[in-house]
Amino acid sequence: MIISLMKILIKFPHEPQQLIALICFLVFIIPNNSVSQTTQEGILNIGFTQTIHSSILNEKRTIWIHIPEAYSDSEEAYPVVYLLDGNTHFKSVVGMIEALSSKNNSIIPKLIVVGILNTDRLRDLTPKHGNKENGPNTSGGGETFMAFMQKELIPFIDKTYPTKPYRLFIGHSLGGLTVINTMLKRPEIFNSYIALDPSLWWSDSATLQEAKMILNNKKLSNETLYVAIANTMTTNMTLKNVVQDTSKQTQHIRDILEFSTQVVPKSTSELEFKYQYYPNEGHSSLPLIATYDALRYIFLWYDLDKTYIPLIINPKINETTLIKTLTDHYEIVSSKLGYTVLPPESLVNQFGYGCLRRKLFDKAEVFFKLNVKNYPNKSNVFDSLGDFYSEVGEIDKAIIAFKKAINTGKGNRYSKDKLNALLAKADRP
Amino acid sequence: MIISLMKILIKFPHEPQQLIALICFLVFIIPNNSVSQTTQEGILNIGFTQTIHSSILNEKRTIWIHIPEAYSDSEEAYPVVYLLDGNTHFKSVVGMIEALSSKNNSIIPKLIVVGILNTDRLRDLTPKHGNKENGPNTSGGGETFMAFMQKELIPFIDKTYPTKPYRLFIGHSLGGLTVINTMLKRPEIFNSYIALDPSLWWSDSATLQEAKMILNNKKLSNETLYVAIANTMTTNMTLKNVVQDTSKQTQHIRDILEFSTQVVPKSTSELEFKYQYYPNEGHSSLPLIATYDALRYIFLWYDLDKTYIPLIINPKINETTLIKTLTDHYEIVSSKLGYTVLPPESLVNQFGYGCLRRKLFDKAEVFFKLNVKNYPNKSNVFDSLGDFYSEVGEIDKAIIAFKKAINTGKGNRYSKDKLNALLAKADRP
Repeated sequence: MIISLMKILIKFPHEPQQLIALICFLVFIIPNNSVSQTTQEGILNIGFTQTIHSSILNEKRTIWIHIPEAYSDSEEAYPVVYLLDGNTHFKSVVGMIEALSSKNNSIIPKLIVVGILNTDRLRDLTPKHGNKENGPNTSGGGETFMAFMQKELIPFIDKTYPTKPYRLFIGHSLGGLTVINTMLKRPEIFNSYIALDPSLWWSDSATLQEAKMILNNKKLSNETLYVAIANTMTTNMTLKNVVQDTSKQTQHIRDILEFSTQVVPKSTSELEFKYQYYPNEGHSSLPLIATYDALRYIFLWYDLDKTYIPLIINPKINETTLIKTLTDHYEIVSSKLGYTVLPPESLVNQFGYGCLRRKLFDKAEVFFKLNVKNYPNKSNVFDSLGDFYSEVGEIDKAIIAFKKAINTGKGNRYSKDKLNALLAKADRP
Repeated sequence: MIISLMKILIKFPHEPQQLIALICFLVFIIPNNSVSQTTQEGILNIGFTQTIHSSILNEKRTIWIHIPEAYSDSEEAYPVVYLLDGNTHFKSVVGMIEALSSKNNSIIPKLIVVGILNTDRLRDLTPKHGNKENGPNTSGGGETFMAFMQKELIPFIDKTYPTKPYRLFIGHSLGGLTVINTMLKRPEIFNSYIALDPSLWWSDSATLQEAKMILNNKKLSNETLYVAIANTMTTNMTLKNVVQDTSKQTQHIRDILEFSTQVVPKSTSELEFKYQYYPNEGHSSLPLIATYDALRYIFLWYDLDKTYIPLIINPKINETTLIKTLTDHYEIVSSKLGYTVLPPESLVNQFGYGCLRRKLFDKAEVFFKLNVKNYPNKSNVFDSLGDFYSEVGEIDKAIIAFKKAINTGKGNRYSKDKLNALLAKADRP
């Protein structure tokens, strides 16, 4: 079955004579989320709230959760984003992640988002106590908070929702400090980190100082960190002259710059690292655009390169090379994510039909057979193989494939119709 | 009353000795949306669906609507975004708009978002019929669709929701074509336009050709247009050499480039215009980042310049200059939006308390009195004025102000307590 007939066309836009038609199809295919998936009695929802009791913190904690919509009948599982200051950033981050992992874009994987709401923010998001400037306060509970995340929240999420063991940690300001501190002290929890204008100055720059030690003692080659720096300088300052400044006023940005341009690059940590300065963003306006850039950086290796499509219709490229290029890509994705990611059923299915339509039968066959190999419990892969055999006139094989489709997974009513049509034709004299 | 005591501190970050304390306060103030505002029985919602019957189109249409949360007890009204392909872009656009107009950021005004879902997309989003490439199809219903928007949808929205007469129109691909066509043919409907990789090639580039005429006949100095261009070129092409190309393959980008670099700049339309090319974005990935940039461009004049805060605490700047600078800014905002926007009550209130705290009494007084003048029906402005008079020892005036607060609008229980305290003190021997 062609899950999305029109979408196949999008995948082959390099034949000039067809391009206008393709663009035309493309533009009216794009909005393809059905209303029913996202509405609930008229309410447009992006997630739900949940309250869990923490023994470690001895209090109830509210979390906001977004679960992606699944593709077809598959039981999918997803990497998880843990988002500090959940209520402030949840909507924009979920909207962004959905846009980057929609049916139109597969720039990043679909992700579960867990937004953590605050009770005592200063207590939870400060690794060390800091009292000089603020008088008595509750700061310094960061390690206890991270114990809650590691021993209570994450196990709860993994037990309750369809998660994969890849985790991303996002925090802003003191949340950014917490993100960096967690990467240094508990690198086993998360795979990647987004630290948005992190408050490294906290408690006499304690975390910055620790970073200098830890990043030369631990190997962090499996961790990826993106640091975003807001423009918190006064009008006449620049990135160049601010580092010469010694005022407390600029300590915030100077500490982040020292971390990003000195401490990390000169360390032996092998951390995958990028930092970006945003001259037009202040401390509060930074998170949205920087999270977008960070997600694109962290998952740079995720999307199949757009040069793959031209390969398919290139007569000089044979089936073996095509399949190898595809599986090589998903082996890289698997190695980055830390679990096996097969070439997506829907994508390979589209490639198969795209080839079939162009009468590239040998290439079509290898795509359909790749799906049969990778997804032997899915009815649709056999239905598609049946379509292929019908098209090339191998009726006996088509009948076997459609029968298999009917008896696999949830079955397939289209396969029944096709099978009956073939059998009727076969019965003719 | 100090609506948000802590937030005042954020507004005066330029005294070095206080900066660390300020950053500290700032970072734990930021997440300040309460859960109760955004949850509904555990569901996190960003809007609701509505169905209206169109006589013009003779069908039911589904729209998705987002209404901003109001500040305090004020009855506010908002400009409206009309978003084509509503279901595809609604979540990311709403998330983005909320982030840019939150309590932490006032980069753009709070906006109502109306997402329009498709029934027959090709019919509605094509101004002219185009049949050469696609065989028989329903295209060419664009003018009827715009009549539906102008005569049915927009009046319905204006009648039903708290709207201001400023409208923004966003569309992608054929939606972008519709946006530009609407600006040319019906400039009276909208104030600003975001055209995302618009399909100007449609129907032999008919809209591009019309633009050449119309943009030299109509004055569009009240309209603002942002055009975003995706990278739809093959690997070896550049913006420079693609314009020399003559293949159909590049007609899409060539038409947008001609419109953006030739037709608009050389016209006499006086259109406020910006275009941006996105080398790293394809046709499908463009909308999110380009809408973000477009909103920042369109509302560039909206936010109070960050240099205003230093003026307040600058001893060389007197009260008259302060108030004039502030009111001048909001006169520009009013003129751009087309309706009166007073300096926001909450902002001016914060300025007043900020000055009071620094014992800049003359400046505090003019801020509090500005709010009394602008918001004579709000209880809180009199309560704040009462706080000011109490602080400077003008007890009689304070008593009058608190009495006024109690008898204005919904009243104010804090004013009652303060009044009683003052009266008790006044009774003492």
